[in-house]
Amino acid sequence: MAVKLGVNIQMITRVIGFLLIVEGLFMFSGIPFALYYCDQCYSLIYAGAITVACGGILMLLALNPRNRNIGKREGYIIVSITWVVISLFGTLPYLFSGAISSFTDAFFETMSGFTTTGASILTDIESVPRGILFWRSLTHWIGGMGIIVLSVAILPVLGIGGMQLFVAEMPGIQPDKLHPRITQTAKRLWGIYLLLTVAETLLLLGGGMDLFNALCHTFGTVATGGFSTQNASIANFSPFIQYVIIIFMILAGTNFTLHYFALHGRFQRVWKNEEFRKYIYLLFIVTVILTVSLILMSHEEFELAFRESLFQVVSIVTTTGYVSADYLLWPGILWMVIFLLMFVGGSAGSTGGGIKVVRQLLLFKNSGMELKRLVHPNALIPVRLNGKAVNQEIIFKVMAFFLIYIIIFAFGTLVMSMLGLDFETAIGASVATLGNIGPGIGDVGPTGNYAAIPLFGKWFLSFLMLLGRLELFTVLIILTPAFWKK
Amino acid sequence: MAVKLGVNIQMITRVIGFLLIVEGLFMFSGIPFALYYCDQCYSLIYAGAITVACGGILMLLALNPRNRNIGKREGYIIVSITWVVISLFGTLPYLFSGAISSFTDAFFETMSGFTTTGASILTDIESVPRGILFWRSLTHWIGGMGIIVLSVAILPVLGIGGMQLFVAEMPGIQPDKLHPRITQTAKRLWGIYLLLTVAETLLLLGGGMDLFNALCHTFGTVATGGFSTQNASIANFSPFIQYVIIIFMILAGTNFTLHYFALHGRFQRVWKNEEFRKYIYLLFIVTVILTVSLILMSHEEFELAFRESLFQVVSIVTTTGYVSADYLLWPGILWMVIFLLMFVGGSAGSTGGGIKVVRQLLLFKNSGMELKRLVHPNALIPVRLNGKAVNQEIIFKVMAFFLIYIIIFAFGTLVMSMLGLDFETAIGASVATLGNIGPGIGDVGPTGNYAAIPLFGKWFLSFLMLLGRLELFTVLIILTPAFWKK
Repeated sequence: MAVKLGVNIQMITRVIGFLLIVEGLFMFSGIPFALYYCDQCYSLIYAGAITVACGGILMLLALNPRNRNIGKREGYIIVSITWVVISLFGTLPYLFSGAISSFTDAFFETMSGFTTTGASILTDIESVPRGILFWRSLTHWIGGMGIIVLSVAILPVLGIGGMQLFVAEMPGIQPDKLHPRITQTAKRLWGIYLLLTVAETLLLLGGGMDLFNALCHTFGTVATGGFSTQNASIANFSPFIQYVIIIFMILAGTNFTLHYFALHGRFQRVWKNEEFRKYIYLLFIVTVILTVSLILMSHEEFELAFRESLFQVVSIVTTTGYVSADYLLWPGILWMVIFLLMFVGGSAGSTGGGIKVVRQLLLFKNSGMELKRLVHPNALIPVRLNGKAVNQEIIFKVMAFFLIYIIIFAFGTLVMSMLGLDFETAIGASVATLGNIGPGIGDVGPTGNYAAIPLFGKWFLSFLMLLGRLELFTVLIILTPAFWKK
Repeated sequence: MAVKLGVNIQMITRVIGFLLIVEGLFMFSGIPFALYYCDQCYSLIYAGAITVACGGILMLLALNPRNRNIGKREGYIIVSITWVVISLFGTLPYLFSGAISSFTDAFFETMSGFTTTGASILTDIESVPRGILFWRSLTHWIGGMGIIVLSVAILPVLGIGGMQLFVAEMPGIQPDKLHPRITQTAKRLWGIYLLLTVAETLLLLGGGMDLFNALCHTFGTVATGGFSTQNASIANFSPFIQYVIIIFMILAGTNFTLHYFALHGRFQRVWKNEEFRKYIYLLFIVTVILTVSLILMSHEEFELAFRESLFQVVSIVTTTGYVSADYLLWPGILWMVIFLLMFVGGSAGSTGGGIKVVRQLLLFKNSGMELKRLVHPNALIPVRLNGKAVNQEIIFKVMAFFLIYIIIFAFGTLVMSMLGLDFETAIGASVATLGNIGPGIGDVGPTGNYAAIPLFGKWFLSFLMLLGRLELFTVLIILTPAFWKK
């Protein structure tokens, strides 16, 4: 078998087994809350035990691999399968507790968690036991942990969509070997991730939240996830809490290698990063436009208009998907702006999903350069990023990425309307899941949810979440026959 | 002045003057119909006289140019300015006759004619004098004449959006010099264009149309324009006439160099052209899907379902915009398919607008190849068109073209919703004008029109028509400062 497919199945089994054990242990961590709030906690215990056991069996199956090499091909397979397998096991707490009775719904919710999307099929979140809600938010946090390592350490090595350029600037990382790179990078990045988690939790506690809510919302923020414990998402929390969440959404949508530099006092290096600058400018400019518009068009008071604008802009650009105001109730042009922001995405190397700021930046720059190239057909006119000329090859890959993204988005919209969704809802569901945002437009807008999507649609949207989260190619490549040919 | 801007203003003036004289003479050709139908014909006489006179003055101003060279820069300027200037003068018949009283509306209608878009601000077409309607359809035909020469002879030399590859296969054409190439190519292409015009007119006459309607609808077809003389567009004509129009829409959306080969009996060469094959396949497959769906979902009778599907699919893909059924009344998923077809466009070197089949073909092929390239990162995996490897440079340019197209589409939608249009109408107006289609979705759908668009919106959409028709870059380039620097 291992020889036939030409991939190291033993090592793949081993890694996935290990990750399942980790997942199972994480499940147990909701037990204290279940006990404190007098919920039943057997569902978490059973689910955790089964997951750990299955992980253990997988590891036993591959106890002594003949070959310990994990190459690129194994990398693609591990990454894609991991998200599917942990989502499958992640449904157990929902199913055992009866919080979600349909397997399809439970899978959708778990995939939405692990891909840090935040799209939910729950119609009454507040009726779900606290232990289960803790697990729900924890799936975000676990997913976010995976994503930062994936985007900084693994995808650049796999050479996907120009990632090698955007994030391969962390010092002391061997650019070629997958294994030492992952270990080394993971330690540093998870340190930062933990720091952000602790800091936000403390601030939310300081703002008056209880520990349960503080942790759940922190998980949803630092992973740019978007699951809340409240039906009204963030809308009923105090302005202080909203500002805290805004700040940490911005931080979570920033390239984590920049946090590393900032922690080492190299702030100049941070501000010199063009993606970061443009990301901040974008958030700032759109917020100013929306604030002024809301004051003029909806006669909102200044601070409220500013906070609502900033929150929604940051939440959508970082692909978090928390909501503090229903943007679909804004004048048409304003939610149209929000809709367009759904195609931006967070920074490369952050927990944010979508197309990514740096890709959009390069695409816009290259569009301008194409005109210059027409004026001077014989001159070599490169696109510059961070002051350096970017290889045409990278631009080519970025354009190809964008195209495939748009094709999948269009195809997703088509599938959704085939299932009977109206135009806006079909578009909204497609862009909000592919971009790992959560709320879209139409019936899946800020106050809506995904409960009414037909069965097949939920599986399809789960697939879109996976595609988007793994930068498309990681999943698409293992679906091509060429990948399996020797 | 000429020295300052570094372009040969005298030759530009001369060419535009000449084209104005031609336009003025064309205006006179509506007079017989005006007389026959007892309309007033002075408006055409005055308009024609003024246009010829202004053209004459421009030519006199540049009677003996110091320098007779027309380079690339002059090419861009002439092409862009021509469409604007002839559209300005083209408003005169509307304004003089009072058929359209607002200058904005008249300009929109004329630009829509010359760009072969077919988007109309008229709410009651049948109340407009015949002589004016003849001029209206004639603007399509004149625009189509311009477009085939432009796309086969001029744009490839200017090197826009990969056009050099798609259409530079007409034998005996010097690839570098603009002037002899235009003359030589124009003669051949206009011969074919005239042949198509005569053939369709005769068939429509044979189908029972009068000469006036036959000519007007032929103009609208062979130019892939879409202006009809009837409020119901093509819906009330006989099936025979509808099939004739379908066939000629398909022919008009085909690369005109292929007609040249077909007329010389080289049918193999035609069928070997991959863009043509994929164009036919696309029309066929989507028609079959829609036919079956309409039979199953709307319980239509087979021939009607087939004819309605084929007509709408062909009309949208070729960017003609004639309508024989209101596709917005079809089940949501079916008009969603029609909406997606709006992003295809006709073949390169045809009178069809939009992105073009060959570009979409290359984009899809390249997307597949990108996956293969990830599997074999060291192998050189080119995209093949017509069996030959396509230079990466061309793919790069095609991707850049697509991107700028999408950016302009998104920007156009944003501007339209800023003017208060709803989501669907904003999207529909943007895609239908940029793609030179005519009918879109929402309020500017098949049974709607552009009358209710606010003033600024009409000017903006006119600009989108121009942008789309001139393959974006021709217009964009003269708006860049780099173009005007020495």
